[in-house]
This record gives sequence, C-alpha cells and structure tokens, in this order.
Amino acid sequence: MAAERPGAVVLLSGGLDSATSAAVARSEGYRLYALSFDYGQRHRKELEAAGETARKLQCVEHLVLSLELGRIGGSALTSRAIEVPKGRIPSEGGPSEIPVTYVPARNTIFLSYALAWAEVLRICDIFAGMNALDYSGYPDCRPEYVAAFEQMANLATRMTTEGGKRLYIRTPLIQLTKAQIILLGRSLGVDFASTWSCYNPDAEGKPCGDCDSCILRERGFTEAGLSDPLRPLPGRGGG
Amino acid sequence: MAAERPGAVVLLSGGLDSATSAAVARSEGYRLYALSFDYGQRHRKELEAAGETARKLQCVEHLVLSLELGRIGGSALTSRAIEVPKGRIPSEGGPSEIPVTYVPARNTIFLSYALAWAEVLRICDIFAGMNALDYSGYPDCRPEYVAAFEQMANLATRMTTEGGKRLYIRTPLIQLTKAQIILLGRSLGVDFASTWSCYNPDAEGKPCGDCDSCILRERGFTEAGLSDPLRPLPGRGGG
Repeated sequence: MAAERPGAVVLLSGGLDSATSAAVARSEGYRLYALSFDYGQRHRKELEAAGETARKLQCVEHLVLSLELGRIGGSALTSRAIEVPKGRIPSEGGPSEIPVTYVPARNTIFLSYALAWAEVLRICDIFAGMNALDYSGYPDCRPEYVAAFEQMANLATRMTTEGGKRLYIRTPLIQLTKAQIILLGRSLGVDFASTWSCYNPDAEGKPCGDCDSCILRERGFTEAGLSDPLRPLPGRGGG
Repeated sequence: MAAERPGAVVLLSGGLDSATSAAVARSEGYRLYALSFDYGQRHRKELEAAGETARKLQCVEHLVLSLELGRIGGSALTSRAIEVPKGRIPSEGGPSEIPVTYVPARNTIFLSYALAWAEVLRICDIFAGMNALDYSGYPDCRPEYVAAFEQMANLATRMTTEGGKRLYIRTPLIQLTKAQIILLGRSLGVDFASTWSCYNPDAEGKPCGDCDSCILRERGFTEAGLSDPLRPLPGRGGG
C-alpha cells in the first residue's frame, strides 16, 4: 500500500482567496480538511460558497464552527462595553478608519481553531488565504504576524513539543495582487462561480458591485484580463 | 475627576487558579472584564463558580462565550476524524498519556478571544491563571509559550501596530506551586468557597475528592496548612 498523503487544514471563507489557497494545498498533494466559521456574517452565501468549494476540492471533511464573535463587539456604536476612543491615531498607508467589517483578532481566532484541529488530526500544515497587499491596513494579514503565529503554534501543542513535528502556517497568497491570485486560481482549476465576495447581495442574491469587496474583486478580474463568472462582462474570457 | 483606572481582561475558569490570577489584577488596581467559556464542560458548576467569583471581584462585566470545541474532537476514541496514532512518543517528566480532559490548543483559543475583547475594549493587559508546575505536561502552560503568544498578539492588532500600545499577557501564577497559589489567593481575599475544581461532582453536587483536579487541590490546601472550604477537614484553619 502506498504511503498516505499528508493532510492539511485549509481555512475556507467562501471567498476566492481562500479557495485559491486551498487549491494550492491540493495541487501539492495534501488531503484537505476544510474549516469554516459561522460568526454572524450578514448572509449565508459565504458559507454556501465555502461548502461548494470544499466539495469541488474533494475535501475529506468540511467542519463549520459557530463562533459568537458578535458578542465581543468591535464597534463603539453598537456595543455598550466599549468606550469611544479619545485620541484617534491615524494609520499610515492603510485606511484611516477601521472599517465596520473589521473583526478584532479574527485571524488569530480562526488560526487558533485551525491549530486545535491540526493537533487533533496530527496535521502539520495549515493553509490560509491571507493577503498583505489588498488589506494593507489589517495587521493580521502581514507576513510578520503569520511568522509570529507559527512560532507560537510550535510552542503550543504536544505534537510539536513532544512529538518532534513542526507546524507550518502556509499563506501562499500573502504577497500576491488580486489579479495574480485570480490567475493562480484559474491555473489550478478553481471554479470562481463557487466563490463569494460581496458584503451586500441584492434581493435576487446577486453581488451588489458597489461594496469594497466587490470592487476589489472586479478590479482583480479586470487586471487579470478575465471576466468574473458571477458578474460576466461582454468580450472577456471566463475565469 | 481622577483618571480612570486601566482595564484588564481576566480569564475566569471557575477554578481557584484563575480566581487568584484575577485577584492579583484587582489588587493592582485594574478594572476587571471577566471572560469565561462554555465549551461543553461536563457540568455547570465551573461556570457558576466563575460567575460568583466575577461578582465578588466586582468585575465591570462577565462575558461567557459558547465555543464548539467538542466538535473539533481530541480523542481517538470519540472522533471519527482522528487516526489512532501509530508510534506513541512518551513525554519526559509530564504524564506519559494525554489525559482525556486535555483540549488541544485550548489556551491558544481562550487567549485569542481575550485578545479580541482586549482590542475592542482598548485594554493592554490580559490576566490568565496558567501554571507551569502543576501541569508540566501541558505545553501551553509554559512561560516560553506565553511569551510567544504575547509577541504574536503585539503583531496582531491595530491597537499595537498603529496605536503605539503594547499588550501584556500576565500569568502571575506561572511559577507557583498550588500551595503558594492558595496562600496568595488567601492574602488577596479570594473566597475559595466560590471556586470549583472537581471534574466529577457527586449526586449532591459535592467534589468527588478522587479526580486529578480534586487531588491537586487537596494537596495544595494541605501543603498550605489550610482547610478547603469545599471539603473542610477537622482541625485546620479555613482557606
């Protein structure tokens, strides 16, 4: 009997970045264990897309965990626990205001669950779709953050401290542009029709085209010279 | 008006370690935001004890979050996703077998939520009751793990990367024996009658006295020369 291929935990959000990151893992021969989170996203489209992507990538298992992130708050306007900050410090480079869609420590929480599952499965590789270029304002999308999480993870589990294994947080997209991600995904056979990016789908369940996430996605497809199957434009090849 | 005292997020499990850790924070003048987790513990006693301790320490808020840790598994006997490990590697010093009560990456997940809440509250100090001596087999109770988590945390949030603040993971008990923790707690006025340690309370809701956690607790009280208010012994002073 041939040796079994190693497994990888892949974080799947339903978006095209994480689908492409998971496709990279698959292309390297890993058996995929997909992990998604239901944390009060505004609509179900994202999780449905994650499920479709998990099926298309033939994941061994797709675990969807419910998290109560909404109860932690994150906006001074919606949570009674938060004091409105006094001296705002403008950011350099990134957006000057934290967007309402920003969830504090989200990637740390997501990666922590991935770490727990990896330890249970005795898996050494965790794939995540973080990208430093399109989200330059998000500290937990930068390579130095990922490296620090990896270092912590290698001190956190029995698998590494007693079992002699080493954990890797793999972020194959971290230095790519959205257009490069789309081209990489296409080369690996990602079905972009099964990915979802929009924050505000319309009444018919179609992407709005106006939110930050739609705009980033459209710009990526345009720069890649491709048409988004979710929002086909005349005269361009399919993604 | 006097400057407002700084806040601290304190992890409260219901046990005497985390109660003492939180009492240290209170003694240093912090306003306390207590955080507990309902992750399928076998009984409600722990969370009830955490609630009582939060009230006695006059916490500003006590947030109890539900986590689906059980769905991640952690035992080869209960989860279909896990392969029974082949070459077991015995641990040095610590117990040679992972106890069934061990939850993979638990402290990483707990600290990640604490980090998220700290960022929302703009709080720089997180107190946790980890202890390296009594749990020498647990990698995520060691000082080097805590230091690595702290380093990662300082790269993970906007508060630190843009706001110029520094996050501290405070583990005041990490090098203490159980007896030292009990004596420290007593000096800070911790009401040990409002803490809970037993994994298997009897039908009347009393500590079993036989589980690992009861044995550690009893040994600690004995070495401290005190009587556990939950299991009073004749001829000893109250804790």
